[in-house]
Amino acid sequence: MTAGNLVQAIRDDREHGASELARQCLDGLVEYARTIQVTDAQVLKAQLIGLARQLQQARPAMAPITNLLAHWLAAFEQSSADTPEDIRNVATKAAEALIQESKGALSKAAANAVNLIGTEKTIITHSLSSTVFAVFEALAPRVRAIVTESRPPGEGRRLAEKLSALGITVEFISDQQMGIFVQNADVALVGADTIASEGSVINKAGTYLLALAARDRGIPFYACFESFKCSKLAPEAIPLEHNDPAEFDPPELPHVEAHNVYFDVTPSELVTAWVTDARVFNERATFAQLTSA
Amino acid sequence: MTAGNLVQAIRDDREHGASELARQCLDGLVEYARTIQVTDAQVLKAQLIGLARQLQQARPAMAPITNLLAHWLAAFEQSSADTPEDIRNVATKAAEALIQESKGALSKAAANAVNLIGTEKTIITHSLSSTVFAVFEALAPRVRAIVTESRPPGEGRRLAEKLSALGITVEFISDQQMGIFVQNADVALVGADTIASEGSVINKAGTYLLALAARDRGIPFYACFESFKCSKLAPEAIPLEHNDPAEFDPPELPHVEAHNVYFDVTPSELVTAWVTDARVFNERATFAQLTSA
Repeated sequence: MTAGNLVQAIRDDREHGASELARQCLDGLVEYARTIQVTDAQVLKAQLIGLARQLQQARPAMAPITNLLAHWLAAFEQSSADTPEDIRNVATKAAEALIQESKGALSKAAANAVNLIGTEKTIITHSLSSTVFAVFEALAPRVRAIVTESRPPGEGRRLAEKLSALGITVEFISDQQMGIFVQNADVALVGADTIASEGSVINKAGTYLLALAARDRGIPFYACFESFKCSKLAPEAIPLEHNDPAEFDPPELPHVEAHNVYFDVTPSELVTAWVTDARVFNERATFAQLTSA
Repeated sequence: MTAGNLVQAIRDDREHGASELARQCLDGLVEYARTIQVTDAQVLKAQLIGLARQLQQARPAMAPITNLLAHWLAAFEQSSADTPEDIRNVATKAAEALIQESKGALSKAAANAVNLIGTEKTIITHSLSSTVFAVFEALAPRVRAIVTESRPPGEGRRLAEKLSALGITVEFISDQQMGIFVQNADVALVGADTIASEGSVINKAGTYLLALAARDRGIPFYACFESFKCSKLAPEAIPLEHNDPAEFDPPELPHVEAHNVYFDVTPSELVTAWVTDARVFNERATFAQLTSA
């Protein structure tokens, strides 16, 4: 895959979550470092740095991409490697270490959620989060799930398949039923694409509605994510991604404009706990200290 | 149409609102009275009463059907008509009067909403309510609309068409975006299938989520409906209709059960005003007096 193709693929991907895409960016940097035909060390270094910066800009709403590539850039720029071979090695090692760190953080965050929630509970979730899936995997089959379709494109269908394969009992609902079914749940649990500086959760559109219903019905709303997902930006400063409205086939009519905003912002007031790889934060003030650290 | 077919058609209809279906029931009684081949007056009367009671039971969640047919039954049962011809006439006149009364109530409720909201506003709505459409009709084109798809089956698409034909600017969104777009609205306005005794609004699933988002964003949430829609039952006593989940094509998988609950309950605490044909009620206590009258 060329550098341009990689950037485009990351920009166009609507299937994978932010952490998964961040790891794909790091994988892409490894492949690029291995295959790029450059003999001058400084040119090679500049090309790799340029690609990492382009990837950061491809999905500005996704903090894991910004953050993991910032770590990669720091490791890579600080290295004293000055031959093409050494540069390729440094680029590869830094990326591989960060991929492992990211996967480890996901597992730790999921483990903290598992301890917090416990077995024999009914969990309602929205969208398809690899962190939330890891929680279900650890609790299976002693857990029940309420899964929303999560249109568009409906990635809740894939979650239902994956939970079914684990033998987990699933109630599958269309999105507008979440207000009804939240009453049957003990806890609402979602992942996040990005956590804004003061703890707002930026996640698939509809997450905010689930949080509102959870509060109104008196069940806890947990966001579970790796610390890499924390942004230093306020929610207003984070652009909410749009996709082509054609994805849900809206009517084409005079005076009618269709929208397809992919993410919404769940204000921190609606979050009962932030479950990270570091620990479970029950208070926004404590959590805000972490994100500003 | 035979009596059995009529009851089945009312039971299966997922396109029309409760008031429209109530009028269809009355139309059906008129047709049945005209066409039924019975020469004995008492048998004719018993058949008509039997059909009205079957129709009431076809959609127990829809107060307008219960109420308009109760009015019809009262008028019909109290009449002293004792020839088949007189009985047919009484049945027809009572039904026609109630159809006119129902349409008049819809117009008055819509007019009260028009006065309350005024021109140059952006109204967000969910589902397709003939009362809400009458409000848009009166305000067109000096009003803007945010219309949700309202799956399943997506009757918001028909509303968008109807508003487009009136020259109204429409933002069309999939259901899970309502939390985002409520911020662009001045007011949330919905119809109702039934209003429970203490003012809860029973309407298409998703209405509760819209009301939660409206409260959280500080915009008023108005329910606009004819007094015929008021039930004497508490919300817990009103069955929420289910439809075949196949309507939204859920995955068929082991351990996975799909649901398609059509209505949700918006608690009266979330309602800013109840806009009826009688007047606008801003307080639940005053409104509750009306419904218990």
